[in-house]
Amino acid sequence: MATAKKKSASRKPLILVTNDDGITSPGIRALVEVMKELGKVIVVAPDSPQSGMGHAITIDDPLRLESVDIFENVEAYQCSGTPVDCVKLGVDKIIKGKPDLCVSGINHGSNSSINIIYSGTMSAAMEAAIEGITAVGFSFLNYAHDADLTGPKKYVKEIAHGVLKNGLPTNTLLNVNFPDVHHKNIKGIRVCRQATAKWEEEFNERMDPRGRKYYWLTGKFVNRDPGDDTDEWALKHGFVSVVPIQFDLTAHHAIPRINNYWK
Amino acid sequence: MATAKKKSASRKPLILVTNDDGITSPGIRALVEVMKELGKVIVVAPDSPQSGMGHAITIDDPLRLESVDIFENVEAYQCSGTPVDCVKLGVDKIIKGKPDLCVSGINHGSNSSINIIYSGTMSAAMEAAIEGITAVGFSFLNYAHDADLTGPKKYVKEIAHGVLKNGLPTNTLLNVNFPDVHHKNIKGIRVCRQATAKWEEEFNERMDPRGRKYYWLTGKFVNRDPGDDTDEWALKHGFVSVVPIQFDLTAHHAIPRINNYWK
Repeated sequence: MATAKKKSASRKPLILVTNDDGITSPGIRALVEVMKELGKVIVVAPDSPQSGMGHAITIDDPLRLESVDIFENVEAYQCSGTPVDCVKLGVDKIIKGKPDLCVSGINHGSNSSINIIYSGTMSAAMEAAIEGITAVGFSFLNYAHDADLTGPKKYVKEIAHGVLKNGLPTNTLLNVNFPDVHHKNIKGIRVCRQATAKWEEEFNERMDPRGRKYYWLTGKFVNRDPGDDTDEWALKHGFVSVVPIQFDLTAHHAIPRINNYWK
Repeated sequence: MATAKKKSASRKPLILVTNDDGITSPGIRALVEVMKELGKVIVVAPDSPQSGMGHAITIDDPLRLESVDIFENVEAYQCSGTPVDCVKLGVDKIIKGKPDLCVSGINHGSNSSINIIYSGTMSAAMEAAIEGITAVGFSFLNYAHDADLTGPKKYVKEIAHGVLKNGLPTNTLLNVNFPDVHHKNIKGIRVCRQATAKWEEEFNERMDPRGRKYYWLTGKFVNRDPGDDTDEWALKHGFVSVVPIQFDLTAHHAIPRINNYWK
C-alpha cells in the first residue's frame, strides 16, 4: 500500500487541455505552457473558433480528429467538432480513460455570471465534470488576442495546483475569470457566486444586396445584482473570480410550491 | 384599477412557441394546437433541425427570419439560427416585448436528467426564463415522428394552464418530459429533481473512401441514481416528470470548502 501510494504521488498528473477559441489561439497556448509545469499534457481542441457554442454536440455529422505538432513536446489533436465533442473524443479515443484534470481556455473574453450559459469554454469543462473528471474553465476579460497573459498565467498555475492537490466536491467544477487589469494590480482570488446578470439584446437589422433583411446579434450586458459576493463584483474590484458550478440544474427550493399546481 | 384588472384578466395570454426539431416537426404542430386553446400564439422556430445545440448562439453569422404560413391562423416565422437565437429574435424583433409564456417542444426524444444540458429545446426555454419570461420545455420519450401525441397534448394543456394561472418562482423554468406509454396509462404528474445520470460515450470509428478516419458520436445512457424523487424514476413508472430548473449554476454548498484552497 505504501509503495502504491508513493508511486501514485510521484506520477505526473495527466492533464487534458481544450478551449473554444480554437487550437491556434494564444489563450490555449498560454494554458498549455502553464500545465506543462504541472503534469503531462494532452491537447484536444477545435480546429476553428467555437465561441458561443454552449453545450452543443455533433450528432448529425461525423467528427474528424487530426494530430498536430504546434506545441513543443506536447501531444495535440485538432477536432472538427464543438468544445464538448473535443472532451468526449479526447477521453474516449485519445486518453482512453480519465485524465487527472481537464482545463479549458484561457478564453479570450468573459465567461462570468450568465455568460457561462453560452460558453463553449465552460461547457467543455462541464462535460469533463459530468464524466467525473476534475475540471476548471479559465477566461480573461480581455478580447484582444495580443493581450498580456502574465496575470492570468500566474493565477492559472496557483488555481490548478490547488485543485490538483485538493480535488473538487463531487459533481462540481470551477468557473475562473481574470479581471482586465495589469498583472501587478490583481488583488488575489475571490471564491464567489454567479451574479444574476443578463444580456439585453438589440439585433442590428440590415438589408442584403438582394433586398432581403438579415440580423446581427448584438447586445448590452446588464448587471443589476448588488451583491458583493458575486463574480461580477470580484472582477470589477480587481480580483480573480472563482465560482464553483454544478450541472444539477434542479431549483430544489421551487419543488414544494410547484407541487401544489396540479393537485 | 379594477377596470385595468378586469381588462388584464380578459386579455388572451400571448404565447411564444419554439422548438429544436425545426418548424415543420409534428411536435411543434401539436404544441401550437394546444396553445391556440389557451391564448394568442406566435411561432418562431428553426428552419432546420437543431437537436443537441445546447445553449448555442449565432455570433459570427447573420440571422435570417422569414414569415411562413404553415399553421392555421397563427403568425409564424422560421429562423436560420439556433433555438436560443429564435427566442432572442422572437422577443426583440417580432413581439417587441415579453410574451406571457414561452413554450418549447414538444421535443421528439427525452430531455430528462443530464440530457437537459445538451438540449436545444430546454435551452430555448431557459433563454426565455433568463429574459424574465415564464417558460416551459416539453419533451416526449418517443423519437418516432409519427408517435401518438394524445397523452403529451393532454398534459401540455394541464401544465401550461397551471403555469399561466400560478406563474413560476423567480429565475426558474420547467423541464417537462412525457413517458413513452399509451396515453391511458399515464399515471399523472410528478414534480421531481434531475436524476444524476450520464451518457457513456462510445465513438463509432470508420474510414472514409480516401482512407481517413472519422467518428460518429454514439453512447449509452446510464442512470445510477437510486432516488424515487427523480425524473428518471417518474418516467420509468409512467408519470409525467416536471423538474423546476434554474440558471444560477453556482454550487453554493461548495463555496466554504473551496474558500480554503488558496489561503
